[in-house]
Amino acid sequence: MKSDGSTIRPIRLAADASCVEVLDQTLLPHQLAWRRLAGRDDAAHAIRSMQVRGAPLIGATAAFGLWLALKHDPSDAGLAAADEVLRATRPTAVNLAWALDAVAAAVRPWPPNARAAAALAKAQAIAEEDVAINAAIGRNGLKLFEERARAVGAGRDGTRPLNVLTHCNAGALACVAWGTATSPIYQAHAQGMHVHVWVDETRPRNQGANLTAWELGQSGVPHTVIVDNAGGHLMQHGKVDLCIVGTDRVTADGDVCNKIGTYLKALAAKDNGIPFYVALPSPTIDWTIQDGLREIPIEERDEREVTHIQGALADGRVDSVRLTPEGARAANYGFDVTPARLVSALITERGTCPASREGLLGLFPERRPNVG
Amino acid sequence: MKSDGSTIRPIRLAADASCVEVLDQTLLPHQLAWRRLAGRDDAAHAIRSMQVRGAPLIGATAAFGLWLALKHDPSDAGLAAADEVLRATRPTAVNLAWALDAVAAAVRPWPPNARAAAALAKAQAIAEEDVAINAAIGRNGLKLFEERARAVGAGRDGTRPLNVLTHCNAGALACVAWGTATSPIYQAHAQGMHVHVWVDETRPRNQGANLTAWELGQSGVPHTVIVDNAGGHLMQHGKVDLCIVGTDRVTADGDVCNKIGTYLKALAAKDNGIPFYVALPSPTIDWTIQDGLREIPIEERDEREVTHIQGALADGRVDSVRLTPEGARAANYGFDVTPARLVSALITERGTCPASREGLLGLFPERRPNVG
Repeated sequence: MKSDGSTIRPIRLAADASCVEVLDQTLLPHQLAWRRLAGRDDAAHAIRSMQVRGAPLIGATAAFGLWLALKHDPSDAGLAAADEVLRATRPTAVNLAWALDAVAAAVRPWPPNARAAAALAKAQAIAEEDVAINAAIGRNGLKLFEERARAVGAGRDGTRPLNVLTHCNAGALACVAWGTATSPIYQAHAQGMHVHVWVDETRPRNQGANLTAWELGQSGVPHTVIVDNAGGHLMQHGKVDLCIVGTDRVTADGDVCNKIGTYLKALAAKDNGIPFYVALPSPTIDWTIQDGLREIPIEERDEREVTHIQGALADGRVDSVRLTPEGARAANYGFDVTPARLVSALITERGTCPASREGLLGLFPERRPNVG
Repeated sequence: MKSDGSTIRPIRLAADASCVEVLDQTLLPHQLAWRRLAGRDDAAHAIRSMQVRGAPLIGATAAFGLWLALKHDPSDAGLAAADEVLRATRPTAVNLAWALDAVAAAVRPWPPNARAAAALAKAQAIAEEDVAINAAIGRNGLKLFEERARAVGAGRDGTRPLNVLTHCNAGALACVAWGTATSPIYQAHAQGMHVHVWVDETRPRNQGANLTAWELGQSGVPHTVIVDNAGGHLMQHGKVDLCIVGTDRVTADGDVCNKIGTYLKALAAKDNGIPFYVALPSPTIDWTIQDGLREIPIEERDEREVTHIQGALADGRVDSVRLTPEGARAANYGFDVTPARLVSALITERGTCPASREGLLGLFPERRPNVG
């Protein structure tokens, strides 16, 4: 796993091509364990229990999950049942529905005995497309990093590092490779730019402290973990040059749904004149909705994620501790929506654009409604 | 300890009046342990190790610490040495310096053999003054709560509760009694207003999840713990009616230094048109400085507070777990500064005022520079 972002791959076909293996992200960074997904229910469990997480990886896992289901029951009824089970695993990620639709469309024309093979081919294509998309996001984001580094006089030999703040994990571990928000970071680092990343720990599940810190460490990218409360102070004091995050869903008007807390960092970036970028593969755009605050349902998760936290004891054992008084209640909203007005640019595989309907349609003109 | 905010008292004279006892807040909410402070170094340790924390309680503990020191060495040299040790325990809290100055001024006129008694009398006066001040803050804040409850149609029988968000612990545990930010909450609750408190857990030390949740629970005030990332989302969706926090230091122009992350909540409150109140006893005002961002030194604390966290294991034992990859680095800034422009009102023992020089001078006219 020692690598840059191009070779950290949290999902892979098993060596005998009979099933899929995923890196269990609920145990990182304390233990490195691969889980074998042998059927539909394993895939659904992996998504639901967050052994895999991150919108692109959820999509890829669901796609492979449909393949695993069709190996057992390739009938229309089997396809429908598997689609329903997998679609219900997580409510927010639009890639989940997108990947399931894509695989279903690819297999439906085929007779049952050819459907599993068609599903596997499509799932693999989705995975490889994700790698290509993220590499392109990295190249496009790199240009913004280079611009900003020139503007603030950072990132080169003899200057201070370019300071990047990120929230949650929109890294290789959230994708098939490269990551979205981390892709420009990996590419900048690979090209010799001096980059330093402030890693928001990202309570309640600490994907920043657990996953982003781990994969940046694997890749040799200088980074410092901070609590989610710290970013505003750092921005007030000139210690952040740009923010970059991923997203679970972007509306046609450019509103950004991402891990809870993203909105607070976007507010602080705006207040301090710091660019706030959102990196996304185009399947993350939900062209059917406009107003993210009103139209995106926000997942409410188990309060135990707030009242308890997992980590490594001094002897290395992984265990959970309770943080709150016994019996205290907690609320656990998974995501928030950052209004487009707070987003400096969207970075997609096709290029960068303003976070607006016109900006997105400029990059994706095929989505422009036909007139006349 | 079952009580409302008026009887939770985290510092007390020992039954034989020979020393001071403090509730060890590093073990709450998992264990309830009183620590005996027998001398200057015990008091300094209690402050430095955060067995006591919160600006008013730090001030009271330092005042009693000077008494303990003078019992052993009442000379000018002993007074100076104790002052130096106690003053160096925490860099940010202005009450610390204020309380030490007050006790020193009270004892200096006396011959050495009368100094300890004078110091004890002054320390007790400081403690009782804190109780009276906080009770007055509660009465003044209660008016703002009542106004807001009327404006949003909440808090009374047959309506939804008035939803209050607070950050960190500016509670009875941070003071001698009542608390500052919690004082209006306790008074509203005592008067039968339906209040519900969103408790920010307040990483890294989780004073919200550990202390505020505990004391609200002891006092029967309905509350829900949330991660620090969640407040913005709640405000976007109309689930917060007002924010109230304490402060470690307010400048003469109304900038507010408080626990790291306060600034992010103030930004979100502003963005959503929600009142953001700061409760403070007047000794917290530092009349010597204006620009909080430039002039207030921010304490940097041990990175272990970020990389590790303490809680209760399933068997009840209190232990720490590591959250980050082995060897990962972290940064740990203790406080941030909320510019006066984001603060709706300051609530003091004398009344409420805009967060501005003119606002503060209106309440404290004796601070107005003499003209003539």
